[in-house]
Amino acid sequence: MLKAKVYVTIKQSVLDPQGVAVQGALHSMGFAEVESLRIGKYMELQLDTADRAEAEKRVAAMCEKLLANTVVEDYRYELED
Amino acid sequence: MLKAKVYVTIKQSVLDPQGVAVQGALHSMGFAEVESLRIGKYMELQLDTADRAEAEKRVAAMCEKLLANTVVEDYRYELED
Repeated sequence: MLKAKVYVTIKQSVLDPQGVAVQGALHSMGFAEVESLRIGKYMELQLDTADRAEAEKRVAAMCEKLLANTVVEDYRYELED
Repeated sequence: MLKAKVYVTIKQSVLDPQGVAVQGALHSMGFAEVESLRIGKYMELQLDTADRAEAEKRVAAMCEKLLANTVVEDYRYELED
């Protein structure tokens, strides 16, 4: 049993309107120190496998095919026991 | 200038329908090893401050007031230089 933590973030060159909106809300609430804010996704997967090398490849495939839109998003992941 | 990484996750006791849907999609794509999948948010904030102790408090306040819905979500954060 492995746990995968997947982080999907919007590429730096792509506008993040949700982040801009939340930053504006924080400013209006008095948190003026927030210079930028970007919002991504964080996923935790429980994998029924003990083969770490194979799991690495499988999680990468999941990200490429479904979890991330690689046109506008980057992804990274970590595996834990 | 500090960078805050904020992770907002749905509490374990709360159903995550988005996670269930994505898990189902992965299964139908052949990734049968995915036993569970939960989706949260990942936010990166650039803070215009050098006072780490103060920033800790301010980020916690942002989470409590806006970034997380503490009724159904947990949050944690890290500060980096």
